[in-house]
This record gives sequence, structure tokens and C-alpha cells, in this order.
Amino acid sequence: MKKQLVMGIIGAGRIGRVHVESICTKIPGARVKTLADPFMNEETSQWAASMGVGSTTKDYKEILSDSEIDAVLICSPTDTHAPIIREAALAGKHIFCEKPIDLDIARIKKTLEIVEKAGVKFQIGFNRRFDHNFRAIRNAVEAGKVGEPQIISVKSRDPEPPSAEYAAASGGIFVDMTIHDFDMVRYLSGSEVEEVYVQGAVLVDPAIGEAGDIDTCIISLKFASGAIGVIDNSRKAAYGYDQRAEVFGSKGSVATANDNPSTAVLSTAEGISSEKPYFFFLERYMESFTQEMREFIAAVQDDTETPLGGIDALRPVQIAMAAGESLKTGKPVKVQY
Amino acid sequence: MKKQLVMGIIGAGRIGRVHVESICTKIPGARVKTLADPFMNEETSQWAASMGVGSTTKDYKEILSDSEIDAVLICSPTDTHAPIIREAALAGKHIFCEKPIDLDIARIKKTLEIVEKAGVKFQIGFNRRFDHNFRAIRNAVEAGKVGEPQIISVKSRDPEPPSAEYAAASGGIFVDMTIHDFDMVRYLSGSEVEEVYVQGAVLVDPAIGEAGDIDTCIISLKFASGAIGVIDNSRKAAYGYDQRAEVFGSKGSVATANDNPSTAVLSTAEGISSEKPYFFFLERYMESFTQEMREFIAAVQDDTETPLGGIDALRPVQIAMAAGESLKTGKPVKVQY
Amino acid sequence: MKKQLVMGIIGAGRIGRVHVESICTKIPGARVKTLADPFMNEETSQWAASMGVGSTTKDYKEILSDSEIDAVLICSPTDTHAPIIREAALAGKHIFCEKPIDLDIARIKKTLEIVEKAGVKFQIGFNRRFDHNFRAIRNAVEAGKVGEPQIISVKSRDPEPPSAEYAAASGGIFVDMTIHDFDMVRYLSGSEVEEVYVQGAVLVDPAIGEAGDIDTCIISLKFASGAIGVIDNSRKAAYGYDQRAEVFGSKGSVATANDNPSTAVLSTAEGISSEKPYFFFLERYMESFTQEMREFIAAVQDDTETPLGGIDALRPVQIAMAAGESLKTGKPVKVQY
Amino acid sequence: MKKQLVMGIIGAGRIGRVHVESICTKIPGARVKTLADPFMNEETSQWAASMGVGSTTKDYKEILSDSEIDAVLICSPTDTHAPIIREAALAGKHIFCEKPIDLDIARIKKTLEIVEKAGVKFQIGFNRRFDHNFRAIRNAVEAGKVGEPQIISVKSRDPEPPSAEYAAASGGIFVDMTIHDFDMVRYLSGSEVEEVYVQGAVLVDPAIGEAGDIDTCIISLKFASGAIGVIDNSRKAAYGYDQRAEVFGSKGSVATANDNPSTAVLSTAEGISSEKPYFFFLERYMESFTQEMREFIAAVQDDTETPLGGIDALRPVQIAMAAGESLKTGKPVKVQY
Repeated sequence: MKKQLVMGIIGAGRIGRVHVESICTKIPGARVKTLADPFMNEETSQWAASMGVGSTTKDYKEILSDSEIDAVLICSPTDTHAPIIREAALAGKHIFCEKPIDLDIARIKKTLEIVEKAGVKFQIGFNRRFDHNFRAIRNAVEAGKVGEPQIISVKSRDPEPPSAEYAAASGGIFVDMTIHDFDMVRYLSGSEVEEVYVQGAVLVDPAIGEAGDIDTCIISLKFASGAIGVIDNSRKAAYGYDQRAEVFGSKGSVATANDNPSTAVLSTAEGISSEKPYFFFLERYMESFTQEMREFIAAVQDDTETPLGGIDALRPVQIAMAAGESLKTGKPVKVQY
Repeated sequence: MKKQLVMGIIGAGRIGRVHVESICTKIPGARVKTLADPFMNEETSQWAASMGVGSTTKDYKEILSDSEIDAVLICSPTDTHAPIIREAALAGKHIFCEKPIDLDIARIKKTLEIVEKAGVKFQIGFNRRFDHNFRAIRNAVEAGKVGEPQIISVKSRDPEPPSAEYAAASGGIFVDMTIHDFDMVRYLSGSEVEEVYVQGAVLVDPAIGEAGDIDTCIISLKFASGAIGVIDNSRKAAYGYDQRAEVFGSKGSVATANDNPSTAVLSTAEGISSEKPYFFFLERYMESFTQEMREFIAAVQDDTETPLGGIDALRPVQIAMAAGESLKTGKPVKVQY
Repeated sequence: MKKQLVMGIIGAGRIGRVHVESICTKIPGARVKTLADPFMNEETSQWAASMGVGSTTKDYKEILSDSEIDAVLICSPTDTHAPIIREAALAGKHIFCEKPIDLDIARIKKTLEIVEKAGVKFQIGFNRRFDHNFRAIRNAVEAGKVGEPQIISVKSRDPEPPSAEYAAASGGIFVDMTIHDFDMVRYLSGSEVEEVYVQGAVLVDPAIGEAGDIDTCIISLKFASGAIGVIDNSRKAAYGYDQRAEVFGSKGSVATANDNPSTAVLSTAEGISSEKPYFFFLERYMESFTQEMREFIAAVQDDTETPLGGIDALRPVQIAMAAGESLKTGKPVKVQY
Repeated sequence: MKKQLVMGIIGAGRIGRVHVESICTKIPGARVKTLADPFMNEETSQWAASMGVGSTTKDYKEILSDSEIDAVLICSPTDTHAPIIREAALAGKHIFCEKPIDLDIARIKKTLEIVEKAGVKFQIGFNRRFDHNFRAIRNAVEAGKVGEPQIISVKSRDPEPPSAEYAAASGGIFVDMTIHDFDMVRYLSGSEVEEVYVQGAVLVDPAIGEAGDIDTCIISLKFASGAIGVIDNSRKAAYGYDQRAEVFGSKGSVATANDNPSTAVLSTAEGISSEKPYFFFLERYMESFTQEMREFIAAVQDDTETPLGGIDALRPVQIAMAAGESLKTGKPVKVQY
């Protein structure tokens, strides 16, 4: 049996807690020694203890200086990602970081250089790659079942819009929401995005528009492989969280539907109806968060490549920048790599 | 009971025969008095007689000069549409014409003016509007079930590519194939297309590219209503004729799947499988051809507006022109109305 | 080209008219010379003429004595089937008869003997065998795709109950409604029913119970092949006409779903909903009525076996009798052949 | 926060381990203090320790005599259930027992009397009631969405037959396999089964027949409510574990399909295919095992009724006995309560 991996988690917000729960209840091969958060309080500490977390602290540096800890998860606010990654790398810790590393390309590159020099493992948190449906598409593509990919489509629609304040602060829809889809099209196509063109609109909430963002868009894509693609986003699908994709190729297509709470179908005089897809991303993607953690932990333990490395942290941000430029100029924009 | 409409059909090719069959076998309210085709031969004449067509001729002018004939169907090659429409209009015949009227915008407009002056009914042959699935989407949209339309998507993929010669001669994918989809997005959205951007590729057959055309594309659309949309086209879907659409709006979405020959599902150790969609457009759309004819005939008999008038003949060609311009320039292009 | 078959139709009720329409509008290889009905009136005559029927009469004997007529369709009330079949056979006409020939087994056998002696073609009107869905099941079974059939299931539920008077006069649910399902299980399994057990109930309309009939039942079946099966019937499915089947075998299963007016799926905050199946049997099965006629006409023209011969007219009635006995005695009953 | 429930688990076989895993990794409100198994070895002890189990033993009596333990799970072989339940009840432990308590009705009743006298909580392990799909049916029925239930159908087919030895030793298909379905129809209908009739066959493995059992059956059911029902069972579905149900009632029906590993649909020239249902019952039902444990633990902690009490342990065995009698006599049999 492998040595149990000892982990520290920085950030006890929603996503930090998701990882605590995954590791403590579903991954026997690892344990959380320390959970750090500047706002750590009694309640969170008790919850952490009940989960089996060794200790809690307000100071994440305790994690970095703890020689027993092998790996850190960085779940703190985005603007702290880059500095903490640097410190963690210099401390020799393996790193899993929530997306994005940063919104500044140069800073991301700088950060990744440090990671590489330190020789530690690095994984970025694009959890949807670990989802059973998207993985089934990828597996079919890799197995050659659809032939050469020609058209990659992603429909990605949130159940509810963020507040306009959040939208503004987030850096905009492309880095906040579409960034997952930019990663997804890279994953599904096995190719890099060369050019993007954005058709954007404010159709959900005028306040989002006033805050300088959009809430609905269609993004045309051109891939290095010659394939083309399209992402459609809305900040509000009335029926819930809509997460689907299709890869169409020379031999056919593979497509996924949404996951539902049950397969029950009700047939009455009013019609035939089934359940709405999951509304909340943690219901829809919980298993994918666990799976990404399993694979990160396994990569550290087995000293193999993580499934999502530095380049995967960088590329989606670069595409998002090009998308922003396209929205601003109204023209197709080549992605700067 | 209404007086039976007396019709003449010009062109005895595939689509002309489809209309003969519809009218003779499924529409009691009309009859085909004369079928004209410059290549009329014994075999076609016998087939026509067996269907109940009154007579056949090589000269379509016999139809135009026959005072008993109320309406003509123009199913001849595209380059003859405009002149025959003019003659028919001047002869006071109601007109149903296969799409497109012409590939020259000025000539279309001129032709439509003559039709309008003549005061005859005119209908253009975008049959897909009469399909049960697309009509179900439109009905849901009109009934307000999805709220305000925000994203209109059409997936339209042919089962087999045309020859490169055909592709070249056809005027290109936008006027030959996508034109149906341009009509469809106008129909589904209830709005006009203002701007298009084309991401095109040659992925199916290099010869199509050599002939100056593309065979795969994603077309981003901006509507006058503020909605946005996307059409994806391929000249070859390995699994058959793929014809789907979705309208996503403020209250939800309505989407259609393909039609299959049966609902049978086979479950074995190899997997769960169902039938492929219809391969041939006449299998898929036969009922829509009959329905468009029923509605044309009813409009003439009841002296009401035809479901698809002159503007519906013009707009898709104008959008196709803009698409061609976008493909050439690599930029989004405003549709010239 | 084959000589056009000349047909006479006896009975101008709903089903007689369905056949007139099929033959006149969809089957070029045959024509209806005469339509007979004791209640023939002006309106029906005009309708027949508009369809292309040669003449109408009140006396079906005119059909039988018309030497030009090759084949007759018997669409008159059930109690006239046996005598008219006899007369038609003696007149040398090929015969298509609506189900059932009679409710008396001895009389059916006697009638079939006369038909056989006369050497004319005979087909019984179990139209569902010609339905695309059930045929897809049968094709899969015949092709060996599910291996040896083991469990045959038919769900057959009407959209609306008949009046209690009708139920009583019809001879009961087994000969009026389930008889189609008895034919269907023979067709799908390729085997004969040896034993039946009925679990019956009156759950839809107490008046049906008072009239001595049931309106809901589950019928267990044992086949000569060793397979087993089950039919479930209800006189009222609130959501429409429910017509499904499954054959489960050693290598897998093949099952069908209902046909819907469109594939449209509406997704809103209220749920995901699709269309109800067709409500009316003529909408659901229209194409099957045409197909059974095509195959009858082809069998006469080509002098081949009809797809449903005398034995197929007899067996379902024999099974229905056994079902009636089982309902009465509360015990499983062997079918008397 | 409630006091954490302290549990002992008797039996470290497959199902015992499932419960260990559920409680240790997914139910923070309980912990496993002791795991007992007469064949306890080093490997199992280590596994238990890694899960967080306090200690292991070969002697289950250590659990019963441990005053800190609140509740026991009995996961030992069936013939030990009754005696251990008695001992546990007398020791004042709350009891969860895998199905069935016993195959002897008198012994079950005696055992349940002791449990009742002891005043401890009791739950029987029919896990499928806790499955999301079947629960969705039950919820729809309880909410009145299908009106009065009229026809209850369960299709329950295993992916692979047991060995003939196992089949013989198990007491036969009705107590080994169908017993889950007998519970299910009680759950879905909300009514008791009054009468059963079995149509049984040996179609999967002749050795099962030689061992005196059957491997395929259709069981007709009559409920106290007046509803009727049917269960179809096969020991081998080539495509995997087939677990579906439908309740049809006066206002409509509610039905479930199988769960699949993903929603991916592959469309190629060969056809349209999707994934097979889960093959292994632990994949299909894992979540239901956890949920039944959650609800048992909650019932103990909150001092409320368990969701499945003594009567739910008894009734399915009584129905199974009637089914056995029906198979033997070839007649419908009333269930003896």
C-alpha cells in the first residue's frame, strides 16, 4: 500500500470544503493535516475536526513550513493564487490550484516558470474534464470512434446570473464562466484554439451590461487541427444548469445530455415530463471534484504527470483574453500564445 | 366544397415529381392538369398519367397560356426561375417557385416587383418550415413558452457531399444548402438576421475546396431583435441526415431531435442502439413538401396570404451573400437589405 | 407493369373509408371500382367519387357478381363477415376481411375451409403487424439479434373507454381489444400461445363491469416455444394511446416506444416536457393500414401467400376464448386449437 | 449537533463492507466501533482500520455486550439472522438486518415479536426503496400525480445467473431475487399483494432447472386496493442489470429507465448507440445502500419509525411462499398473512 499523502488546504470557502470532504470521506490514500483560512472560526474548526482534518489555522504559512505536508490545495481568492503558488513551489510542495492562476498572462507565465524550476507537481482545477459525460466524449474521440474531429460544440449555461457586482469584479464572463468551456474544447478536440470570434449580448440582466460585461454569447472557434467549434453561453437557463457538448467528426458524432436526479418520466393528460437537470454546480459536478483530486493525488504518489499541467492553466486564460478583444473590436482575434 | 384548383407543373425532375405525387395522391382540393418538361419522354408521360396528371408537354408555355390553369409550380433549373416567374405573373397565374428565385439580388427584387404588380399569389419553396418538428418549435416560441428568444441554434448536416462539380455550379454552400437554414432561423426567431460571421473549412472533400467552396462551417448570427444565433453545417454526417434546432429564451428552451424510421431500441452485450435518422431528404421531409403544397393551395383558394411570400424568397439570399462576403474577408458582415 | 387490381369494398364505415383512401391515394397498383353499403347516401357517394371510386351501391352482391372485380375488402359489421366471406369465396374473389371473422370458433373454421377450397387469397385485418415499430421488433427477432425469445411483453392501452353498451355488445375486451395483442404476441414471438391466465379488473368505468366486462387486465402467456409473455391492457390511458412492446431473449432485448407528433422537447422552470403520443388510432396506425393493403394487393398480383392467412384469423379468437374462460374460472386455461 | 451513533457490524462480507464504507466515508453522524466476522483476518482488519473502524473481532458477541454500541447491522449469512436479531434485541441494540430475516414464516414472526417486545428499532435491508428512481415513482404516486394506481409493473433482470449450487441453496428465485420486487410492488403501490400467479421457465441455464429452481418468470399480482400488477424476472439480461418499474393509474403513469454510466450517445454509420446500464448491483445501487443507512441512523437518533419495519420484513417472504406454491401447483395462490 502506498504511503498516505499528507495535504494542506488553503482556503476554507465553498470549494475548499468540497475538497476537504472528498479527501476525508472518499479518498483513503490521502489525509488533510491542516486547513488554513484567514477567517478561520470555531464553527469551521469543528466542522473540519468532524471530517477528520488534523488541525486548523488562520495562517497558511504554517502549511508551507510543515515538513510533513506533501501537497497543498490553493482555494483562496484568485488574486492570492500566484503568490501562494510561488511560495509553495519554493517550499517544495506539490500544488493543486483552483482556476485561474491569475488574469495577467505574464504573471501566469512567471508563476509557472517558478513551479517548473522547483520540480513540483502542478495541477489546475478544471474539474469538468473529470466528469463522466465529458470524459465519455473524450474517450470516444481518443478511441477514434468519430474519426477526425471537425466541429466541437459546447452548450454551457448557468442556472442563475451572478450579481452585477460579482460579474464586474470577476473579470468578466470569459474568465469567470467561459474559461471552463475554453478548457473543455481543448480537452474534447485535442487541439489548440487559434482564433475566436464573439457574438455577445446582454439579454439576461441589464445591470450586467451596465457593469461592462455580457451575459449571453456565441463564440466561434478555429482550432490548430483545422477543426472549427462553437461555445454558447447564457448566465441564466430557466430550467437549470445546462452542460452539454458534442464532437462531430469524419466518422460520426458523440454528444452528451444533462444529468437528471432520476430517470422518472411522468405521462399525464398534460403531457410527458421528466426531471430538470441539476440546478446547482456542486450537485452536477460533485463526483468530478472528487475524481480530479483522486488523479492529482495519484500523480503525486506515482510520480507521473498530472492530468492538467501548467499549459492547461495558461491556455484558457489566453483564449479568454482573445475573446475579450473580439468582443471589444467586433472582429475575429487570433489567440496570442 | 371549394372548387378544385387546377395546376400546371413546370419541371419533371425529382422535386417536380414530388409535387405531382403530393397533389395527385394527398390533396383532393387540387389536380395537376399539365406537367411540362423540355425532356418529357414516354416513360415520364406514362408515370404522369398513372398519377392522374391530365397531360404532358415539352413546352411550359402551354401551361401559361391555358386559361383553365389557376396556378403553376416552377420546378425547373434555378436560372430559369426568374424568367418563368415573370411570364407566369404576366399570365395571371398564381406561383409557387422552388428556392431560390435567383442568385442575383437585383434580379430577385425585379422579379418580385412584377409578381406584386400582377397581384398573383407567390410562395417560395422553403419546405422545412412545414416540417412537424420545426413547426413545433415555432409554435412553442409563438405561444411564449420559451419567453423572449435569446439563442437560436440550427444543426444542419447532409448525409453525403455533392460532387465538387455540383458544389461549384451550385453557387456555393450558402446558396445551395445553408439557405434553408437562413430561412429557418428567420422562421424560428421571428426576427431578421442583421449580421453574420462565418468560420468555414474544407474537411469533407478537398475537391470541394479546390472548386472554391467549403464543406463545413459555423455561422454566427445577430438578429434585429437582439438575439444571437448559430448555424452549423457539414456536407457529410456519417450517420445520416442531421436536422435539429433549438430556440433558447428567457423562460426556457425548445429543441428537436431527428426523426427515425422506428422507435425500436436494441439492447445487447454490445450496447444499446437505436435507428439512424433518415438518410434521404425526401424520406425526412416528404410530409413537409405535401404540407407546403396544401397551404399554398389553401391560400389561393381562400385568397389569403401565402405562408412564405416574396420577402421570404429574398432575405435568405441576402443573408447568403453576406455569408459569402464574410467567408472571403474573414470578418463579420452586415446583411444588406 | 402489373395489371391494376380491381377492388370492391363492402362497408363504408370508418375503416372502409380508410381503405378507400389508402388505395385511391397511395397505391397506384389498384383501384376501387365499387363501394357498397346498405346505408349508402348522397354524401358518401360524392366523397367516394372525389376519391376516384368508380361507383357506389347499397347492395354488396353487385360487387360479388361483377366479373371485373378481382378482390373484395369486407369492412361490414362482424356478424356479416362469415356469410360474406363464403359468398365471396364462392364467387372466386380474393378476400381481405377486417378482424374478427366471427366470435364462434366452429363458424370461423367452417368459413376458412370454404375459402381454402375456393383457392382464393385471404387476409385478415391485423394492421398492427404492418406498423413500423412492431415490424422493427419482428425484424430484429428474425435476424437473431436478441437470440432465443424468452419474455414477450405488450403494453396496449386505449386512450378512452368505449361506452358500456359498446363493451357489452362487442363480445368483451378480449375479442374487441386484446385480440390485436394476441395477434401481436404471435407475430413477435414467432410461436403459438399455449396457455393464458388473466388477472382482470374494473378500474376505469363501473358501468363496464355492470355490463359484464372488465376494463383493465394483465394476461400471462405461455408459448409453445417455451417462452413466456405478458399483455397489459387498460381501456383508458390518460396520456393517450399507449402501444409498446418488448421481446427479451437470450442475447438481449428489443423494445419500442410510442410515436409522437414531434420530437420537440420543452425545458422550462416547470420541467422538461415532450409531446403526448398520438391519441387516435387512425393517427397512430394510418400508415399500417396502407401497408397491409399494399401487401394484400401485392400477394394477389404476385400470387404469393398473404402475410396473414386463415390461421392468423383463427388463433387470436381461440386465445381470446381461453382468456375469457380464465377470467371466469380464475385459473390458467390451455388454448384449444 | 446530535450525538454520533456508535455502531457494530456483524459480517464482513461484501454487503458488510458496503455498510462500513457508507458509514465511515459518507455519514458523519455515525461511526463503526467494531466489525465482527468469524473469518476475520489481517487483511480485513487493516482495511477496516484504514476506513476508520475502531476494532475488529471474530466474535460478534463482543458487539452485543459492548454497552457503548447503540445499533448493530446484521450482515451475516441468512440462517444466522434470526438468532442474532434475538440476541441483539435482548441486548437492547437497535437492529438493521439484511433481507431476509429467515425463510420460515413462523420463525420470522417469532423473531419480530421479540424485537417488538424489546422496544428497539428494526429495519430490514430492502435497499431499492432508497434508490433515486424508484423513490421518484413513489413520490409521484404519493403526490397523486398518476391518480389511483391500477397497474404496477416491475422489470427486474439480473446481468448474470448464479451457479446452480447457489440457486438451489438460496431457497429459490423468489426468496433470493424476486423478494426485492415483492417489496418494490408493495412500496410503489402502497397496497398489499393478495394473490399471485407464476408463469415460470428455465430458459437461461438448464442446471438451474435441474437444481429445482427456475430462472425466468412472469408473476401476476392482485393487490388489496383492487390494482393489479406484474413482475418479470430473468436471471440473465445480456445487456446488464435491468431494473425498471412503472405505476399506471387513473390520471397517467410514471416510469423509470435504467441508470447509465454516462449520457453519451455515439452516432455513426453503424447506428446510434448509448451506454449499457450498470452491470453490477453495487454500481447501480451504491447510493441506495448509503441512503438506507442514513435513514436508519436518523430514525434511531430521532427516535422515529424506521422506513422499513417488521411488517416489511415479513410480507415479501409471505408473498414469495405463495409464489412458490403457485409455481408448484400451476394455479393462482392467495398470500397467507
